[in-house]
Amino acid sequence: MTDRRTAERIAEFIEPLRVEPGSRVDLAEDFDPRYKAGMKKRDGVELLRTGVELLADYQARLAAQDTWGVLLCLQALDAGGKDGTIRHVMSGVNPQGVQVSSFKVPSAEELDHDYLWRYARRLPERGGIGIFNRSHYEEVLVVRVHPENLDRQKLPAEAKGPGVWERRYREINDWERYLADNGFKVVKIFLNLSKEAQRTRFLKRIDLPEKNWKFSAADIRERERWDDYQEAFSDMLSATSTPWAPWYVVPADRKWFARICAAAVLAHTLVELDPRYPTVGAEARRALKDAKRRLEREAPGGAPRDPYAAKHHDR
Amino acid sequence: MTDRRTAERIAEFIEPLRVEPGSRVDLAEDFDPRYKAGMKKRDGVELLRTGVELLADYQARLAAQDTWGVLLCLQALDAGGKDGTIRHVMSGVNPQGVQVSSFKVPSAEELDHDYLWRYARRLPERGGIGIFNRSHYEEVLVVRVHPENLDRQKLPAEAKGPGVWERRYREINDWERYLADNGFKVVKIFLNLSKEAQRTRFLKRIDLPEKNWKFSAADIRERERWDDYQEAFSDMLSATSTPWAPWYVVPADRKWFARICAAAVLAHTLVELDPRYPTVGAEARRALKDAKRRLEREAPGGAPRDPYAAKHHDR
Repeated sequence: MTDRRTAERIAEFIEPLRVEPGSRVDLAEDFDPRYKAGMKKRDGVELLRTGVELLADYQARLAAQDTWGVLLCLQALDAGGKDGTIRHVMSGVNPQGVQVSSFKVPSAEELDHDYLWRYARRLPERGGIGIFNRSHYEEVLVVRVHPENLDRQKLPAEAKGPGVWERRYREINDWERYLADNGFKVVKIFLNLSKEAQRTRFLKRIDLPEKNWKFSAADIRERERWDDYQEAFSDMLSATSTPWAPWYVVPADRKWFARICAAAVLAHTLVELDPRYPTVGAEARRALKDAKRRLEREAPGGAPRDPYAAKHHDR
Repeated sequence: MTDRRTAERIAEFIEPLRVEPGSRVDLAEDFDPRYKAGMKKRDGVELLRTGVELLADYQARLAAQDTWGVLLCLQALDAGGKDGTIRHVMSGVNPQGVQVSSFKVPSAEELDHDYLWRYARRLPERGGIGIFNRSHYEEVLVVRVHPENLDRQKLPAEAKGPGVWERRYREINDWERYLADNGFKVVKIFLNLSKEAQRTRFLKRIDLPEKNWKFSAADIRERERWDDYQEAFSDMLSATSTPWAPWYVVPADRKWFARICAAAVLAHTLVELDPRYPTVGAEARRALKDAKRRLEREAPGGAPRDPYAAKHHDR
């Protein structure tokens, strides 16, 4: 259980990252990819360890309570640090309670359905934490920057006409509100990388053989659309940060700081949900007592040799 | 292709069954389970045959166009005739283009997700017709009449408090509008059976050995909640008949008439969508011509013996 002081400190820490619902975001103006809250890397690493422990504790209680599910959506440009963030933030948490779904180029079967279909199928269970590595927000990002993706979705003409992005924003907001109202908390992180930091990371991926697999020529073509993506991100953040599913813009130029932020955003979500171990009622307590008595009656070494006879033991 | 006159006649025929969006429905007052539009059974059987042929034609075009999907939701009380309607209306249609999903008691995995999850997974593909034998409307019917079902969904306390049915109506309307806006037309049929006709059908199921399997003692317990169901149906019809996904109340005391109505409602939906075989562009036409030339060049009997050599044939 976290004390109130810790909860408040987490809330204060992430406050500058939160996109105020209804506000108009201009990424370049409003969020600095190099922001680090005056923190030093050494202190940050220590803080992340504490954060991960806290997450592990909360995940266990979320699973035991089995009432709420949490969906964390991660969006970023290439080299934004999604994979590393997931690895570092979630590595201390029981994998039985976490399901990571990565969304790549949609399959033919997926394209044959409504655009939310493939995401809805991968929603977390109650008591679970779902991580979307890329998410339904691709449908207003890459699909918008490359409209040929919209054509590939085989929509009726009237479904891809003017206003399609505004309509999708509304549809996504409706969907997330439905989820929140039914016990699934959605929280969204955008890893905000500077153009210069992307250049450095790309060069490293090209220069280091063990990083080569992470780079493809398509990444450069996407980089050439930088301004279009910045605009798509800004519009998306403005339109879909809601009271029930807020966006957090995490400064991503420093990996260690981005990870602390992501851990803090998730921790904040869980602290707010405040999941508790279920307490046991009078009847169940009696059953526990009875079970204890039966176990104690079994004298040490007095257990029957044939395990299949065990169930007749008490007769 | 249906001529305009046929399309108009279908529209006129189903008009009295349609629940006007925004209207307040009182099932007992507004819809007579014995209505038959002055039709005789003999004429009805003939009409159904024509209707099924029309459906088969439209389904083929829907599949070829591969743009719109259609979802037909069937709701009824026990013995309302859902299974027979599906069998008789859809039996002439290519099963490759039709997917029937029956929703029974939810599984543990399904209960662990949001209440629309299991329905969303079974949505039709583009070009396909999905039939829901019972549907997401169970979530405001059986779940409402037996609130212990709501408890089984392990919702947070605030998600099952007052206003839960109004909220679900809104969520369902939002979902269906999203589907319609993205190329999936939802159409909904309620098979409206009288209490007396249900009694007769239950007695038949008990008396005829080959029908026994269709009857369970639970059916009688549900029948005792008749008035509660009528109220739940009336509220549901009032709140969720929308311009984008209307309800049709089909008189179900006469099976033959109910089937004509269901076929007509589905036909109307398809006629409105007006799916067309895709036309082939200039380039594709050239490719077809070229293929034809190659096929014609193969003299009869002149094909190579070794089938693996066939691809080198033209060199």
